Amino acid sequence: MLTLDTRHLEPHISAQDLRAALPEAAAALRSLLRREGPGADMLGWLDLPKAPRREIELIADTGKRIQDTSDCLVVVGIGGSYLGARAVIEALSSPLERSPRVLFAGHHLDARYHRALLERLADVDYAVNVISKSGTTTEPGCAFRLLWDDLECRRGADLGARVVVTTDRARGALRELADAHRLTSFEVPDDVGGRFSVLTAVGLLPMAAAGIDVRALLAGARTMMERLRDPAADGVETNPALAYAAFRLAAFAAGRRLEVLATTAPHLGCLAEWWKQLFGESEGKGGQGLFPASLTLTTDLHSLGQWMQEGPRIAAETALDVVEEEPLAIPAMAGDRDGLGHLTGRAMHDVNRVALAATLEAHADGGVPCCRIEVDRLDAAGLGALLYFFEYACGVSAYALGVNPFDQPGVEAYKKNMHRLLGRP
Amino acid sequence: MLTLDTRHLEPHISAQDLRAALPEAAAALRSLLRREGPGADMLGWLDLPKAPRREIELIADTGKRIQDTSDCLVVVGIGGSYLGARAVIEALSSPLERSPRVLFAGHHLDARYHRALLERLADVDYAVNVISKSGTTTEPGCAFRLLWDDLECRRGADLGARVVVTTDRARGALRELADAHRLTSFEVPDDVGGRFSVLTAVGLLPMAAAGIDVRALLAGARTMMERLRDPAADGVETNPALAYAAFRLAAFAAGRRLEVLATTAPHLGCLAEWWKQLFGESEGKGGQGLFPASLTLTTDLHSLGQWMQEGPRIAAETALDVVEEEPLAIPAMAGDRDGLGHLTGRAMHDVNRVALAATLEAHADGGVPCCRIEVDRLDAAGLGALLYFFEYACGVSAYALGVNPFDQPGVEAYKKNMHRLLGRP
Repeated sequence: MLTLDTRHLEPHISAQDLRAALPEAAAALRSLLRREGPGADMLGWLDLPKAPRREIELIADTGKRIQDTSDCLVVVGIGGSYLGARAVIEALSSPLERSPRVLFAGHHLDARYHRALLERLADVDYAVNVISKSGTTTEPGCAFRLLWDDLECRRGADLGARVVVTTDRARGALRELADAHRLTSFEVPDDVGGRFSVLTAVGLLPMAAAGIDVRALLAGARTMMERLRDPAADGVETNPALAYAAFRLAAFAAGRRLEVLATTAPHLGCLAEWWKQLFGESEGKGGQGLFPASLTLTTDLHSLGQWMQEGPRIAAETALDVVEEEPLAIPAMAGDRDGLGHLTGRAMHDVNRVALAATLEAHADGGVPCCRIEVDRLDAAGLGALLYFFEYACGVSAYALGVNPFDQPGVEAYKKNMHRLLGRP
Repeated sequence: MLTLDTRHLEPHISAQDLRAALPEAAAALRSLLRREGPGADMLGWLDLPKAPRREIELIADTGKRIQDTSDCLVVVGIGGSYLGARAVIEALSSPLERSPRVLFAGHHLDARYHRALLERLADVDYAVNVISKSGTTTEPGCAFRLLWDDLECRRGADLGARVVVTTDRARGALRELADAHRLTSFEVPDDVGGRFSVLTAVGLLPMAAAGIDVRALLAGARTMMERLRDPAADGVETNPALAYAAFRLAAFAAGRRLEVLATTAPHLGCLAEWWKQLFGESEGKGGQGLFPASLTLTTDLHSLGQWMQEGPRIAAETALDVVEEEPLAIPAMAGDRDGLGHLTGRAMHDVNRVALAATLEAHADGGVPCCRIEVDRLDAAGLGALLYFFEYACGVSAYALGVNPFDQPGVEAYKKNMHRLLGRP
């Protein structure tokens, strides 16, 4: 279902380098499972695939209700409060969709976007899912004001039927609002940080409202959880998360300072964004951590490919290779004047995978250690498995670097300045 | 119209460091203008803002004809053959547009995307602009086969009225096709490389078909050209392109290995992609060149902000700050329970700019030298000026690093492997 191919690490990261990184990675894995490392009170995500059936039913039913009663759902959130849901929804949606079931807001402060959103919603019956642990984050707060104002003042809508809140169990601005207006609400668990929250209501409710089978997603995550936490899976051959963490550790030790995640389709772009937050925010502290960047292949071979091939040798690369065929064949062209006659009748997906193989070979030749993650398919179950894989690998990798993966002290710096400059009381 | 604010370079890059980088940057600028550096036969882009009026009329008229006779235009191209047009079109379009006038194809090999595109086009009268110097590049070649097949075999369309070719003046597969089918065609000049081609028909025709005023865009570029090439503009205070190049040079000399371009709105995301190709492909050779990455603010402060603040100190940052107001005010909320009462009535765009200022202050405090590019507005003229600014700065910066900005030998590596693996004759 998921395998890690490390052939293209050589010679930049040798089997010996990987073995040298293994004891640290294995010790980190033990810390994680024994809940002995820093931030151990934030390990609730480890067990999310085993969430009680009742909780999942409630989420799925609410998603169904939103689908039945609204034309679309506007998800208001930033960072971990929207990236996971968006990654899964985009990965499973048709590109170029005219009327997506889920739109996003409050993930930035761009006025043009939010104005366009309000215009788009003008002739639409929409619901809102506002997601924020504190309820006072500036970006989603501003967007939520716009939507609340639109629903309450302009439309006189029944807010209880239109607004669903995902927030702290007991405290905070959104909890008070939910109580005051009797809004449907879900919890952000106390022991799960934003970037590890995709398998809570934070991620699952928007997915359910988009029509995604969240039970299948969780089942995929559960399968991966059982595989990675099997006590017998204690080596790089048996545990791909351990191997991936060891690769990242060896890369950092060898002076690599950025990791690009290469995906082969634009609908996986937001998955790469989710991955960036996961690793960047978990590891980027105390001078540690690879800078997470992404490539969409083959698009970015025609922009960043040159640097990857011949720039400073500070990058490592991880590629996501999806086996499952998408049915589309390249048609014939009279005379083959484009020189592509050898591709006539071939599946475009197959050509795309060949391009990926060619890329990893080229980048490895150029001095970039490349690791290939092969997955059978990225349906709901496959995505659930992949999300859990990355979360688990991230926990191991960050512990191996010696950092607390579950705090983000640096994120406060711009907020403090902003609140001061804006005169927040 | 465009100013460079270098206050937040200090103390990581001091005024002295900048002055130390200046002689090299100034020498590079002279090489560029005297056409004495490597790749001097590829400097046609320097004078594109002065293109003959007749040529521009022809492009604008063809764009108008496409608008009048088609519901949309599909642009087939990859790398420099689509990034510039897409950057400008997205920067000037309304986000969340249901029926964009321009769609893109052949910028990757994803089957799902191209299948969805064909479905989307099924009930649409569309035209195609296929853009490729050689006409044999795999990605646009495959996509063009799909569209050609759709138009010719399934619809029996008048291809001469539907397909516009932008390619080499005299040679290649697309030139032959254009001649054989009497297609309207435009030239990719011999002395302009792909990533510097946005102000040729490559970029301008799709823009014109999207309804953009290409004359205004060129006028903006011309104003910037005159400003940057004024012989009196020979210092960091008088020439922002020289200052930007000196900053990048000083950053590289100080051990920085990546540059993030921070923009403040999602509709500027593709502009950042264009910038990445421009700098990455021009400089990333012989072990030189900052890795170009991008941040969309404030979105990515909630994902990459932690790494920017506290990760390894290898990044420099350039922020694009757009002054012009977008009209949208933050409404009141009863009781101000979200703690955002101090923002009631404030323009969201203003809050966004404050967030940017707060970010640069925070990142500089955290050890990242930050440079702010302030532009009055990003309308067609403003974008034209900015595009020329970056191209010019890139030429100077790459020459100062000692590389030829106009070749891309590394891009061939994956193509060679791919052709071998696919059995291309």
